[in-house]
Amino acid sequence: MSDFIAIDWGTTNRRVYRIKGGEITATERDDCGVRAMAGKDYTAEIQAIVERFGDLPILLAGMVGSTIGWKDAGYAALPTGLAALARGLCVIDERTAIVPGVKLIEGARCDVMRGEEIQFLGAAHAGLTPTGALLCQPGTHCKWARLDGGKIVDFETAMTGELFALLKTHSIFAGSLDDAVVPDGAFRDGVLRGAENDLSAALFGVRAATVLGSLARENAASYASGLLIGADVANQVSPGQMVHILADPDLGRLYQTAIDLLGGAGRLIDSHSAFSAGIIAIQELRS
Amino acid sequence: MSDFIAIDWGTTNRRVYRIKGGEITATERDDCGVRAMAGKDYTAEIQAIVERFGDLPILLAGMVGSTIGWKDAGYAALPTGLAALARGLCVIDERTAIVPGVKLIEGARCDVMRGEEIQFLGAAHAGLTPTGALLCQPGTHCKWARLDGGKIVDFETAMTGELFALLKTHSIFAGSLDDAVVPDGAFRDGVLRGAENDLSAALFGVRAATVLGSLARENAASYASGLLIGADVANQVSPGQMVHILADPDLGRLYQTAIDLLGGAGRLIDSHSAFSAGIIAIQELRS
Repeated sequence: MSDFIAIDWGTTNRRVYRIKGGEITATERDDCGVRAMAGKDYTAEIQAIVERFGDLPILLAGMVGSTIGWKDAGYAALPTGLAALARGLCVIDERTAIVPGVKLIEGARCDVMRGEEIQFLGAAHAGLTPTGALLCQPGTHCKWARLDGGKIVDFETAMTGELFALLKTHSIFAGSLDDAVVPDGAFRDGVLRGAENDLSAALFGVRAATVLGSLARENAASYASGLLIGADVANQVSPGQMVHILADPDLGRLYQTAIDLLGGAGRLIDSHSAFSAGIIAIQELRS
Repeated sequence: MSDFIAIDWGTTNRRVYRIKGGEITATERDDCGVRAMAGKDYTAEIQAIVERFGDLPILLAGMVGSTIGWKDAGYAALPTGLAALARGLCVIDERTAIVPGVKLIEGARCDVMRGEEIQFLGAAHAGLTPTGALLCQPGTHCKWARLDGGKIVDFETAMTGELFALLKTHSIFAGSLDDAVVPDGAFRDGVLRGAENDLSAALFGVRAATVLGSLARENAASYASGLLIGADVANQVSPGQMVHILADPDLGRLYQTAIDLLGGAGRLIDSHSAFSAGIIAIQELRS
């Protein structure tokens, strides 16, 4: 089993792993994402990482492989497994390569992901989920992936996290959604209302309910988050369906609450284990 | 028929009308909305209006009657007609009064309007719509009102215009939705996709389709607007239903296109005639 450096290089954050004998022996996380790298020299940055982590082959994933990153690594088409990603590597030099993203084009329906595919496929590869499963990775852009036979066969992205941030920072709600979002009664009320999926009207209802005193101001953030997550979940999860959630515990718990409330069964799994399993498998296939 | 000054005083804009013998004899529009009035003296401002328009009784409507305006004029409860608004006037002095807003509280469902009620009720009073009708006033916050017997019996507000502005200005779409929104093929495609009502995912699809080249960059604004308006309309309009639209011609045409495409029948009516009919009727009832 070959030793190597894996870099999960996103828009905002970067995480570097040294992997020896199939185990993570060192890791480092910083906010040096591709946006912070704009105009900087990736070759020099890679050299600095090699100095800290050792002179090993390097496998990169995430937005580093986009048009705003180091080099456009393209996209693998569906269905996509780890072998297809390994075959599709974008080779920088004989020691360095970037994992491609995944695209969906189905008539007028289009979607893309870049980075999340490693976690989704790694989770199934490591046995953290069945090889046929519905997985969810919440965040700024929440990704939902359907796996069959250990391959991604379908996926969809919802702007759930970004919509909440926009409303919180720039809308008529600015200043009134700053309380912590917790999976309490207000959140659950929001989830049920959000599941009706007339989001644009439901969101104004938060404003009206606050103005009329039906919704306590300190509950507005949880209720509004519930609306957005409830709408997102209602569009993806059928009654009785199991969903494997890859997220930090706080956000994961919100999705789990919404999924359970709407008749599914949410289960949190460890996204770091999923990532390392996926990237190690691709490195093995590459060697 | 008494002569008076009517002021439609919104958050951003203000329109003053001198009404003599039931006809508008002078009008003036500026951007001196209640937000621009923050910290200023309404009494002095009214005095200045009287100097320009004549020493007449004054009837105000809109956000001037809110907590961010001159004085909170409260809300009339549903069902609400012109007589109820006249009975509910917030009297400043014997010459000056503010029309109340309208509120809806129905279990957990809450909504408010302030200013639009004059147009909705005025339209029916003037015979611009039947006394039982579905009316739509698109804008930053799109208002849908259901009238029965010339009274508002139900209404709902959608944040459609504000969501578009947020996406255009502050989201991952910033800079890519600046083209004019027109009711063309891209807009119509957006309306049909938006009517599926998984808005959060449909919006990310605009990004993905642009990245993958399925959607021309210059069509992104029309398509995204179509998504939002399509979702809004699909939640309000049943097949075969007639909708009377109170809006400027460009925005009205977008809603009309979406309503017609989704099986309704949109008809544009003149919002200024509707406002003057409504405010004159309230003044008559007041006298």
